[in-house]
Amino acid sequence: MTGHRFRARLEYDGTDYAGFQRQRGDRPTIQGVVEAVLSAIWNEPVAVVGAGRTDAGAHALGQVIAFNLRWPHGSAALQRALNVNLPADIAVHDVALAGPAFHPRFQASRRQYRYQIDNGPVRSPLRHRHSWHVAAPLDEAAMSAAAGVLLGTHDFATFGTPPQGDVTVRRVFAATWTREGDQLAFHVEANAFLYRMVRSLVGALKLVGEGRWSVDRFATALAARDRSQITEVAPARGLCLWSVAYDK
Amino acid sequence: MTGHRFRARLEYDGTDYAGFQRQRGDRPTIQGVVEAVLSAIWNEPVAVVGAGRTDAGAHALGQVIAFNLRWPHGSAALQRALNVNLPADIAVHDVALAGPAFHPRFQASRRQYRYQIDNGPVRSPLRHRHSWHVAAPLDEAAMSAAAGVLLGTHDFATFGTPPQGDVTVRRVFAATWTREGDQLAFHVEANAFLYRMVRSLVGALKLVGEGRWSVDRFATALAARDRSQITEVAPARGLCLWSVAYDK
Repeated sequence: MTGHRFRARLEYDGTDYAGFQRQRGDRPTIQGVVEAVLSAIWNEPVAVVGAGRTDAGAHALGQVIAFNLRWPHGSAALQRALNVNLPADIAVHDVALAGPAFHPRFQASRRQYRYQIDNGPVRSPLRHRHSWHVAAPLDEAAMSAAAGVLLGTHDFATFGTPPQGDVTVRRVFAATWTREGDQLAFHVEANAFLYRMVRSLVGALKLVGEGRWSVDRFATALAARDRSQITEVAPARGLCLWSVAYDK
Repeated sequence: MTGHRFRARLEYDGTDYAGFQRQRGDRPTIQGVVEAVLSAIWNEPVAVVGAGRTDAGAHALGQVIAFNLRWPHGSAALQRALNVNLPADIAVHDVALAGPAFHPRFQASRRQYRYQIDNGPVRSPLRHRHSWHVAAPLDEAAMSAAAGVLLGTHDFATFGTPPQGDVTVRRVFAATWTREGDQLAFHVEANAFLYRMVRSLVGALKLVGEGRWSVDRFATALAARDRSQITEVAPARGLCLWSVAYDK
């Protein structure tokens, strides 16, 4: 069955999921749940493709998915049917028809992630599901200065492994930290990311924020192209796939 | 045992709790969990008093508690000991010595609550635990105009029942709605609140925001002092006890 090809933006709280990608195991995945709901609506197996394979426990505001479905009632009715059947921690927005060849991962030109740190002296239960608690005061100006080193095209082998193939070169368009009270947020945008790249960057930038690494030390780690430079990978709970962009 | 009297600010995500107040039943309560941790630290039953009895599923950023404990190691060490033993959805801040007669509820002069509405066309999973999803576009200017009717001293019998005794007169110091994108927030401050008062106010103000009630209709409901005026009580998940103030 082919039917129409649809695209949608997916928002989820990934706390209770083993990541986006379908897999064997006891814990549900985002892809598995969305496919199960679509398959129940159509009464036939439906396969979903996503723009990014978010980690277990990580979240998304702007995951992009695509799927084929013989659905004669229009995008708005499909969106309602999906949201009525999805659990409270997953929702679809912006369901629309896509070109028959649309692929959310291969055609994406930019991805933006956001990472949140709860930087108060005591962990905040109201932010616990969506941030990493770091009690030591962090210097966000130093962290932003170090993040500036990432801009442009670099070999990021220090900060992650490629999901497929062996190319570790990526192009970073933006990387900044902002603070609002005790809340620190890292916004990073690139053409694509390596596996665990954002969490490894945050783990290293935290060392800069603590004063344990200088900006130069951070630049040396990037230039080393050596995974053993990374001693701490930030937890997935603070990570959110913020948006995915496509060239027109 | 008397020991020192301590006070603390309690923050919690109340999603998984049957409210603040200790009670018989299967679901844990905030008070019950904090008392169990204190009693384990001291190896003797410890009773905790709170400023407000938040509803099942409601949250707090600024609940105030007090308890007596023979603890010779200072407030900072007690705060650490508590936070290490409390679950991730409860934390204590600002643990300090209090006067021997300090009572968080009887001596409070003002309480501030915040209620969040997720006013986008599709429910947001990232905000689901802390907001009420209302898909119909709400007019926050009309809601603030109606909320202005609440300012001052009134009999609020329409909007709640007193926790004890029969006095339903309260004094409201502030009541405003603000919008940030799809997020609507109601801030309301009073000397004290009736049982379910904030959630009943939000349910009625939502009618104003939808254009189903005028500001005059809302004022008439307040003046009626009649609980049957209220057709919808907003769900607890959007409610947060924001702060409690004490006169010096």
